Amino acid sequence: MSGDFVVSLAESDPSEKFRRLIEVGLALTSESDLSTLLGRILLEARRFTCADAGTLYLVTKDGRLQFSVVQNDSLDHSEVLVGNGSSPVTMEISPTSIAGCVTVTGSTLNIPDVYEIPGTCGFHFDRSFDLKSGYRSRSMLVVPMKNPKGKIVGVIQLINARCPGSGKDTAFSSDQEELVLCLASQAAVALDNARLTGDLRRSYAEAIHHLAKAAEYRDKDTGRHIERVGRYAAAIAGAMGLPQDYISDLLLAATLHDIGKLSIPDCILQKPGKLTSDEYREMKCHASLGGEILAGSENPVLRLASEIALSHHEHWDGSGYPHGLKGDEIPVSGQICAVADVFDALCSARCYKSAFGMQESCEILKQESGRHFSPAVVDVFFRIKDRISEIREEFA
Amino acid sequence: MSGDFVVSLAESDPSEKFRRLIEVGLALTSESDLSTLLGRILLEARRFTCADAGTLYLVTKDGRLQFSVVQNDSLDHSEVLVGNGSSPVTMEISPTSIAGCVTVTGSTLNIPDVYEIPGTCGFHFDRSFDLKSGYRSRSMLVVPMKNPKGKIVGVIQLINARCPGSGKDTAFSSDQEELVLCLASQAAVALDNARLTGDLRRSYAEAIHHLAKAAEYRDKDTGRHIERVGRYAAAIAGAMGLPQDYISDLLLAATLHDIGKLSIPDCILQKPGKLTSDEYREMKCHASLGGEILAGSENPVLRLASEIALSHHEHWDGSGYPHGLKGDEIPVSGQICAVADVFDALCSARCYKSAFGMQESCEILKQESGRHFSPAVVDVFFRIKDRISEIREEFA
Repeated sequence: MSGDFVVSLAESDPSEKFRRLIEVGLALTSESDLSTLLGRILLEARRFTCADAGTLYLVTKDGRLQFSVVQNDSLDHSEVLVGNGSSPVTMEISPTSIAGCVTVTGSTLNIPDVYEIPGTCGFHFDRSFDLKSGYRSRSMLVVPMKNPKGKIVGVIQLINARCPGSGKDTAFSSDQEELVLCLASQAAVALDNARLTGDLRRSYAEAIHHLAKAAEYRDKDTGRHIERVGRYAAAIAGAMGLPQDYISDLLLAATLHDIGKLSIPDCILQKPGKLTSDEYREMKCHASLGGEILAGSENPVLRLASEIALSHHEHWDGSGYPHGLKGDEIPVSGQICAVADVFDALCSARCYKSAFGMQESCEILKQESGRHFSPAVVDVFFRIKDRISEIREEFA
Repeated sequence: MSGDFVVSLAESDPSEKFRRLIEVGLALTSESDLSTLLGRILLEARRFTCADAGTLYLVTKDGRLQFSVVQNDSLDHSEVLVGNGSSPVTMEISPTSIAGCVTVTGSTLNIPDVYEIPGTCGFHFDRSFDLKSGYRSRSMLVVPMKNPKGKIVGVIQLINARCPGSGKDTAFSSDQEELVLCLASQAAVALDNARLTGDLRRSYAEAIHHLAKAAEYRDKDTGRHIERVGRYAAAIAGAMGLPQDYISDLLLAATLHDIGKLSIPDCILQKPGKLTSDEYREMKCHASLGGEILAGSENPVLRLASEIALSHHEHWDGSGYPHGLKGDEIPVSGQICAVADVFDALCSARCYKSAFGMQESCEILKQESGRHFSPAVVDVFFRIKDRISEIREEFA
């Protein structure tokens, strides 16, 4: 978003501003990705006020203020600091800081020059950023993000209002206070919604994960097999250029490929030696039983998981089970998971065999390309061999 | 909502209307219950225009228009027709009906008198409702609910604008067209969000359900045991006055109470006769193992499920397992599920016993109140015995 400079709306007519505010509200509330949303909130607030810079703080669960977005056009800097894996910087909610004061009181602060805050005010401006960067903060408009229940979920801090025409430093107007406060409320709702959606997605993924673990529970020596298969499958699908939604679904769905093993008796599943042909026939039922256990769902992950459970033992040349499908009759999810599953099994020690090395396992995949496996999938696998090795080490 | 008559906003100043529009947008986008949301959308649209009546249509997945909300102040009628279990009435999207024409063209229709639509228009007004009810439809403002992607998800049809002062019939103004169109866009976003949330909640519940079924898969003769236990537990919690969120979580979590049985070998789990004391000791491990399998989750359903798996075999007098907890040391979820689980087991035939009748099962619960079971939970159980019988029949 660096270089996405602020275009003025500061001088347009009042009802035009409200129209724009509604439009922005629509855009915000239909955005469900948290990082994108946060960056957008601050950018839109700056657009309304022609502000050169700004910071967005979120109130954390344990009651602190988290630096979540920083933007500064003069310094050509724009960064979203949450949801990217790094551990975010937080500060205490104290009425002695500007953002802290707004969080505590719930009231807007509109300060013409932060270097001229009277000593009688309870709060003061922290100059450390200016000293480090050479930036000169002057005017500041700081508003709470209050949701409809009246809870403050964050603070928008806008820095250095500019005259739309001349670009000169100016103060924030009281009209702008109202607009930004309105925008901040819309942002709070959008944020609540994005978090709710995120929580539900995580809960869902976690339930699927438990389901996969449960299925694996009796199959003592598979370790982190299901996780690796999910990762390998998603990496392959990514390199094949399949859509992002499909990849996310596959990451979860592939972990359920062996769920049908729940229906296989201990005496077969946990047998240390080679299976008799009768036992092997029963073992093979896990594919169709897995398909059945997961069948009949309306949700995309479970539908895909059912397809994979059913088809991950089909062979490209038609010699697999349960249906003896051939070539592209096998769903692409099954083609991918066959490679991911067998590769991981080859690399792992099992009760009936020791582990092969990376080299040897790859050799076997190559030999079986066009026989057991889809040649296209094996090709992609070799193209991303480094990524595969990384996953193998990460989930060892 | 009947009697919730429309108060005028029709004559207030323009920027006041926009402020109100933003407020309404906030309220709509923070509402995640679909029925409540739909009723609210139509009511707010009528408030902005002082409309006596209205209909909200949704576009269904198979491309029809569904009568979703009807409101009519003069007839004192207000009804939300979706999400209440009844099968909703739909009609074809045809440019010959008023709502159909708006859906097809994506343009607003503002009609002064629907009885005076010129024959040259492609659409006409269907008088059947007026003939049946004695109502006289006159002015009509019909706008598409378009989401930010440009997709039409529904239609708002407002009927009979009134002068705010006199209450006399009038036509809808062009100012009102713009406001309602804006509101309809906000409503479309709110609707998309509510549906997304609903879909995620259902997917989540479904994944938990599959997890519970998987756990039960090897335990051949339990039939719909887990579903009944979930329902009984939720019914008891409801009658105990526990919070609604807790009850919803319990309904799912209770179904996972026996997930630890995944770790019990076939030879014990499926043994037809009585278990030896060694076997029984191993069988009892399913409680602590269940607690472990589900442990470490951040999501409330799985946390509760872990608590239940661990505590549903504790006895009120301290004679249970795994920890020999006593009285209120046992989590309330465990106290409830103990009653629900044992009652259902008593009423069911198992490989080691035949089914008891309702009467006999209740007798046993009563005897064990204060010994095996919490007396308070048993009391509540007897208070809702009729509801329990209904569940028993419904999930037989």
